[in-house]
Amino acid sequence: MAPPRAVGILGGMGPAAGADFVRLFVQACTAYLQDHGQPVRDQAFPEHWLVQMPIPDRTQALSGTPPGPQDPAPHMLQGIGRLAALGVRSVAVACNTAHVWHSQLQGLFPQLAILHIAQETAAHLQRQGATRAVVLATAGTYRTGLYDEALRSCGIEPLVPDAAGIEQLMQGIYDGVKQGDLALAAQRFGHVLEGMRRQHGDVPVIMGCTEIPLALPQAPEAQGASLVDPAWILAQALARQAYEAA
Amino acid sequence: MAPPRAVGILGGMGPAAGADFVRLFVQACTAYLQDHGQPVRDQAFPEHWLVQMPIPDRTQALSGTPPGPQDPAPHMLQGIGRLAALGVRSVAVACNTAHVWHSQLQGLFPQLAILHIAQETAAHLQRQGATRAVVLATAGTYRTGLYDEALRSCGIEPLVPDAAGIEQLMQGIYDGVKQGDLALAAQRFGHVLEGMRRQHGDVPVIMGCTEIPLALPQAPEAQGASLVDPAWILAQALARQAYEAA
Repeated sequence: MAPPRAVGILGGMGPAAGADFVRLFVQACTAYLQDHGQPVRDQAFPEHWLVQMPIPDRTQALSGTPPGPQDPAPHMLQGIGRLAALGVRSVAVACNTAHVWHSQLQGLFPQLAILHIAQETAAHLQRQGATRAVVLATAGTYRTGLYDEALRSCGIEPLVPDAAGIEQLMQGIYDGVKQGDLALAAQRFGHVLEGMRRQHGDVPVIMGCTEIPLALPQAPEAQGASLVDPAWILAQALARQAYEAA
Repeated sequence: MAPPRAVGILGGMGPAAGADFVRLFVQACTAYLQDHGQPVRDQAFPEHWLVQMPIPDRTQALSGTPPGPQDPAPHMLQGIGRLAALGVRSVAVACNTAHVWHSQLQGLFPQLAILHIAQETAAHLQRQGATRAVVLATAGTYRTGLYDEALRSCGIEPLVPDAAGIEQLMQGIYDGVKQGDLALAAQRFGHVLEGMRRQHGDVPVIMGCTEIPLALPQAPEAQGASLVDPAWILAQALARQAYEAA
């Protein structure tokens, strides 16, 4: 097996989710090695870099026009630029909403493969034969149609909560996970999920904000649901980039 | 409050422990902000970098003399050098055994504060009034007297398992955690802990290898034990470096 390539992770949005993404990436590399009959030892893992830096809030930026000093894109570019200088060849961005700026970032760094979390997730669900999927996300992600577009282009109908449900998700993300209150987050996320399951039955549920998987799986309303974690799908795609890309 | 300074984490020894260290650092920053009455939001966290790279096995290097191409020190220097180039001012090394090379690394990077996991842990236990402590670690760490020295200089007597116990710990670390078999690891670690508790009673137990806290706390034999996680102590020290150092 050729030595794996160095890869990078842009985090900080929020930091707990970024840390969790590294855990998922290590887990994905372990699974990759095992699936390919390779011994799992420290030295078999690809070099990988994580940067977590203060980046202006994505949803907040998307509510103002035009984007001002609170535009997150230049901050993301600053981080990705340094990852590129370190010699990484692929980058994963550990934040769903941030992917609104994906084409801008990718356009400025043609030497990097910047993975796209919603496209990876939609392709994964398509392979599994899904035709509908619930999307749980931030108001910013809904507003940009990030998952709508990726899912529809894979023939999957996106199902989204109403305005009150989105407000509950935002409370779970901002007052819950981002402030370390996982119980509050699980309560808010669980309540929204319960409503969506009652309305739509058992369809895949995309946890389309990296903060949601940190609390929703622990909610009683999530038991038996087909939860899909885009961060896990992205981590597996990044592992493949490290081990396979030429 | 002045903007926090950028800090770095050298990981990959092993990668699961490095990922967990980022989680602990984020948790330590959250606690720091809360303790100082500051709002916890993404932008309040210090810029931090993690590099996980293939580094030759530390314990293996310590069993051969003189160190050959499998010497981990140059690899660690390569990682720390790039962290320094990124502008970090303090570095934590997410591996206990690797601290054998601490003075060499610190000597070559006088512009960085490279924290010392065993000294931070010993100082923490001294503040708590401990006079004895069980040390669970790799054969490499025991051989170098890393914790022995740090603890004794703080007036704390180190208590270590016998050769058979050390062999059990090594199995838990290498065949268990490093290969993703946490159940095996918990069984091996728990067995050694049980023996030490029977012999020495309820003294603080230093989990002096970053792989041990990933499995020991789940072992039934660990219930009620005074487990001390040096990685958590180190993460808190790194958070103070980011928020406080001038």
